[in-house]
Amino acid sequence: MGVGMKVLLGIDPGLNTTGYGVIDVSSGKVHLVEAGVVRSSSKVLAHKVKEIYEGVIDVIASFRPDCLALEQLYSHYDRPTTAILMGHARGCICLAAAQNGIDVHSYAATKVKKILTGNGRATKDQMQRAIKLELNLTTEPDPPDVADALAIAICHFYHGRLNTTTAKEFINGVDRKFSINSLIR
Amino acid sequence: MGVGMKVLLGIDPGLNTTGYGVIDVSSGKVHLVEAGVVRSSSKVLAHKVKEIYEGVIDVIASFRPDCLALEQLYSHYDRPTTAILMGHARGCICLAAAQNGIDVHSYAATKVKKILTGNGRATKDQMQRAIKLELNLTTEPDPPDVADALAIAICHFYHGRLNTTTAKEFINGVDRKFSINSLIR
Repeated sequence: MGVGMKVLLGIDPGLNTTGYGVIDVSSGKVHLVEAGVVRSSSKVLAHKVKEIYEGVIDVIASFRPDCLALEQLYSHYDRPTTAILMGHARGCICLAAAQNGIDVHSYAATKVKKILTGNGRATKDQMQRAIKLELNLTTEPDPPDVADALAIAICHFYHGRLNTTTAKEFINGVDRKFSINSLIR
Repeated sequence: MGVGMKVLLGIDPGLNTTGYGVIDVSSGKVHLVEAGVVRSSSKVLAHKVKEIYEGVIDVIASFRPDCLALEQLYSHYDRPTTAILMGHARGCICLAAAQNGIDVHSYAATKVKKILTGNGRATKDQMQRAIKLELNLTTEPDPPDVADALAIAICHFYHGRLNTTTAKEFINGVDRKFSINSLIR
């Protein structure tokens, strides 16, 4: 994570429901800014991707994130058609980022789960609980797409801290070593 | 194919090379307007899809097609990662169409091949030769992505004629029954 990163956007792409989560890390800690879903109501594929694209453009315009974190592609999908359709949504989300000069980072789902819960095979429910704890929320984020989007953003933050403990933005900030326990309060 | 269709755009999506073909069918016959490829030179996925999107937007702005024809998704891909990446490009192409109010039609690869060559399992070389004959070209379209894009556009034209022989645009036009032999001159 580069010097000066403040607002991170995580997205969980889907053709019907795309989760997004915006966090502010300028204090050296994670604060929730906003999270939600972009839903596409059309039954026509081209209109669906347009709805998702416009929703993501709107989120970017509202919160001006410094970077975007997405789940990495992987090739062992059980349902190839679903994965290819998700690719349509993901492509338009990448486009929205590129058009706004926002770098895209991607993380394996197992890495995101491990950083948030200590378990690379955590269930959706476990992820929702971890996000609730991490962000001091009163309820678990719902639908799970929102929790997944926030998890990816948070993963990017901790991953960046792991790799840039001497980076300028942390010199006067919280500088303790990352540990799984520090996340699961 | 609706009444008044004149300019058809066929696209063969790919993350590195996207073929496109523009045909004019206002005379009731197929005439080549332009065909080529949009290449993406970046190594960054988000920049690649941006290059493809901008290339397709440019083609749409230049030729104002009435509709876009694409190859149908199918789920039996040998290489899932390649298919998902192709989905990224295809999503951005669908977005470009939707933003310009252009309907997207899709055809199974076997249907495109069968309409152009009589053989649903035609090779790339056979497709290139069929397109050369169909459009009275002096050479075969190259790379094959261009031939595939033109094939999809031509398939959409003949498919529309098959289903709309009484449609207004054909009352004063060529009205003979479609046959595979009429295509392979």
